[in-house]
Amino acid sequence: MPVRDVYVIGAGMTPFSGKLHAGKTGRELLVEATLEAVKSVDKGIDLKRDVEAVFVGYFTPELYEHQSHIGPLAASWLGLTPKPAFRTEIACASSSAALFAGITAIASGVCDLVLVGGVEKMTNLDTFGVTEALAMASDDLSESRVGATFPGLYALLAQAYFRRYGATWEQLQKVPIKNHYNGSLNPKAHFQQTIAQLAEKVGAKEGVKYRDELDFLKNSPFNRVVAYPLRLFDCCPISDGAAVAFLASSEVAKKFTDTPLRLLGVGMGSDSVALQDRVELTSLRATRSAAEMAYKMAGIEPKDVDVAEVHDCFTIAEWLAVEDLGLIGKGEAPKAYAEGLTNIDGEIPVNTDGGLKAKGHPVGATGVGMLNEIWHQLRGTAGKRQVKKKAEVGLIHNVGGSGASAAVFIFGR
Amino acid sequence: MPVRDVYVIGAGMTPFSGKLHAGKTGRELLVEATLEAVKSVDKGIDLKRDVEAVFVGYFTPELYEHQSHIGPLAASWLGLTPKPAFRTEIACASSSAALFAGITAIASGVCDLVLVGGVEKMTNLDTFGVTEALAMASDDLSESRVGATFPGLYALLAQAYFRRYGATWEQLQKVPIKNHYNGSLNPKAHFQQTIAQLAEKVGAKEGVKYRDELDFLKNSPFNRVVAYPLRLFDCCPISDGAAVAFLASSEVAKKFTDTPLRLLGVGMGSDSVALQDRVELTSLRATRSAAEMAYKMAGIEPKDVDVAEVHDCFTIAEWLAVEDLGLIGKGEAPKAYAEGLTNIDGEIPVNTDGGLKAKGHPVGATGVGMLNEIWHQLRGTAGKRQVKKKAEVGLIHNVGGSGASAAVFIFGR
Repeated sequence: MPVRDVYVIGAGMTPFSGKLHAGKTGRELLVEATLEAVKSVDKGIDLKRDVEAVFVGYFTPELYEHQSHIGPLAASWLGLTPKPAFRTEIACASSSAALFAGITAIASGVCDLVLVGGVEKMTNLDTFGVTEALAMASDDLSESRVGATFPGLYALLAQAYFRRYGATWEQLQKVPIKNHYNGSLNPKAHFQQTIAQLAEKVGAKEGVKYRDELDFLKNSPFNRVVAYPLRLFDCCPISDGAAVAFLASSEVAKKFTDTPLRLLGVGMGSDSVALQDRVELTSLRATRSAAEMAYKMAGIEPKDVDVAEVHDCFTIAEWLAVEDLGLIGKGEAPKAYAEGLTNIDGEIPVNTDGGLKAKGHPVGATGVGMLNEIWHQLRGTAGKRQVKKKAEVGLIHNVGGSGASAAVFIFGR
Repeated sequence: MPVRDVYVIGAGMTPFSGKLHAGKTGRELLVEATLEAVKSVDKGIDLKRDVEAVFVGYFTPELYEHQSHIGPLAASWLGLTPKPAFRTEIACASSSAALFAGITAIASGVCDLVLVGGVEKMTNLDTFGVTEALAMASDDLSESRVGATFPGLYALLAQAYFRRYGATWEQLQKVPIKNHYNGSLNPKAHFQQTIAQLAEKVGAKEGVKYRDELDFLKNSPFNRVVAYPLRLFDCCPISDGAAVAFLASSEVAKKFTDTPLRLLGVGMGSDSVALQDRVELTSLRATRSAAEMAYKMAGIEPKDVDVAEVHDCFTIAEWLAVEDLGLIGKGEAPKAYAEGLTNIDGEIPVNTDGGLKAKGHPVGATGVGMLNEIWHQLRGTAGKRQVKKKAEVGLIHNVGGSGASAAVFIFGR
């Protein structure tokens, strides 16, 4: 158990986008996100005076920007030299590792106020280049070297789930339909159109009138197969973006806001990197282990969670997540999604910001990007996508690669 | 100040080498180092039962091994799945960031026993490839993109120092002469020959009998210029290797050893990545800031340090380090080195293991590699290179890139 309490006193992020940030560097995106986070601090914050250390997640800057050593680079562009600064990496959960490092820095008493964040500037490479960069999160000895890609790996997970639980691809489409709808309510989202809107627009070009969203997803050539059974709308986009948050100790937090988020629980977990070495494919052990650690620390059960941000890099990942987190029973996602349980107005709203699917997935920024959404949901500032019931407990779940790492954070008001 | 005390209860490392590890992967080197660390724990340790989390530094695995996501990869190869695991990066100080993360994890109460480590498998690439990989620690916008390399950047620092203090390259040669001598006493060192031995061997091939070590360094074509004024023996080698250590809380440490090292102070600092943005070139601000933080926490002064491991990726770096750490007065390194103050039998022994220059510099492993030496020096198990006076306080100093980051750790018995 942490010796000292940890609070979130501010959060900010750039829009996540595939086009908007062309020509910018990762460091500039971090500055943009930080400037927004500064504005979010109720009683004001002076970066130079108040921030004691910087922890930044960035998965593969070497490939996107021919640049590493991101910690001091971020610190200097934020005017924070000579403060401590380093980068963390666990693939797509890299900024969750930064969050963990920031939490322990505060809880340990080594720091009283730190900046945690993440960034990824992916559009510098074309789709093939990005696929190659992402593949470094899989095992070189048995996966990427022989041609496995992430859509392929998650397609295997989907197949295993379908086979075990008799679920279908059609049932799974409730995930992108929900997440695109949520994204349409989020001005920071990469995609802000519902699938119904897209069906109409794409249908018009094709000269086809689609009956409904599923009809479009199933029959439009636009929704091409990427890795069977996963199609285009089963995959998150390639995005640029950055997200940051300020963490502080109990004493210090009070100086900056009267309504911080309180960290209730933190958990991390790991698994074999290669799928072939896993015990099973219809559940991620890293998630289960991280969740167990976080729930135990928080002293709560899954049913106590009011709103959750989970890792949906591919549609099947969202189903695995909600089940492994215990938000929905094992094998029950198809039914729960059919009933709308995870919709914004459902019993347990999931990915209210559009998720990785519609909000976008600038890999290194995703974890702290999720924290941004929980920050707004718990403080009641999520605008059109604000959950209806008063949210007291919010959960973040971020996965690295095909599930070799996972992080779970639980926040309260 | 950390709320809970942190102890080192074991340490291990592979030999650092340019040849020995051909054909091995980074993960295998981490396993090798860990197995040695397990043996070093006085009362025994069971990895699976006792280790709660893994923090690993590795600078550029993407380029050396087409592999990232090193945290869970290391955890699984060590049989530690599903424990929390992530990678840290601040260039050549990457495993010092892992050490920082491990320290705060313990001090915060989130963990009671963790493994920290680092690795770099550099010889997978040729010298040009390694130079390219290392260049990612400099600023892409103003340094690496226009052709700056690390020998070149440190050559600028050497020129600035020579000009400011009227020092000479000849005076600087005390650094490699000392460090190769120390390396000759270290069975784990990349180079285990004194420069006198090399002068004789190389001289025999050249048909020249060198008067002394300086005569050889100055006149042998073998000691070619790399980046003026730095020559071959002013540069550390390209090495493979891994190093790990176990950290534990006060209560838990007792179960494993009666003679742990106690962490007295920790400090980290940062600076502009590009040299052109620095305030000065004859001192590293990141080091000064990290040292100030660490000394303050430890409640000691530089004169209290009995033995120090400092970052000598290039000879000039060792002079900057000992001065910025306050072990030697500013501009006084030439005199101090002429007098042998930093020799193993001197007043303040520096780099008793051979330093990066002779022990080797597998980038990500270096910080925890330094901890391995302090572990032995403070416990009196450093063999032929054991410092003469009873060492009570040991200091580690690790730099990232050309000084954009630095970490300082102080340990006592």
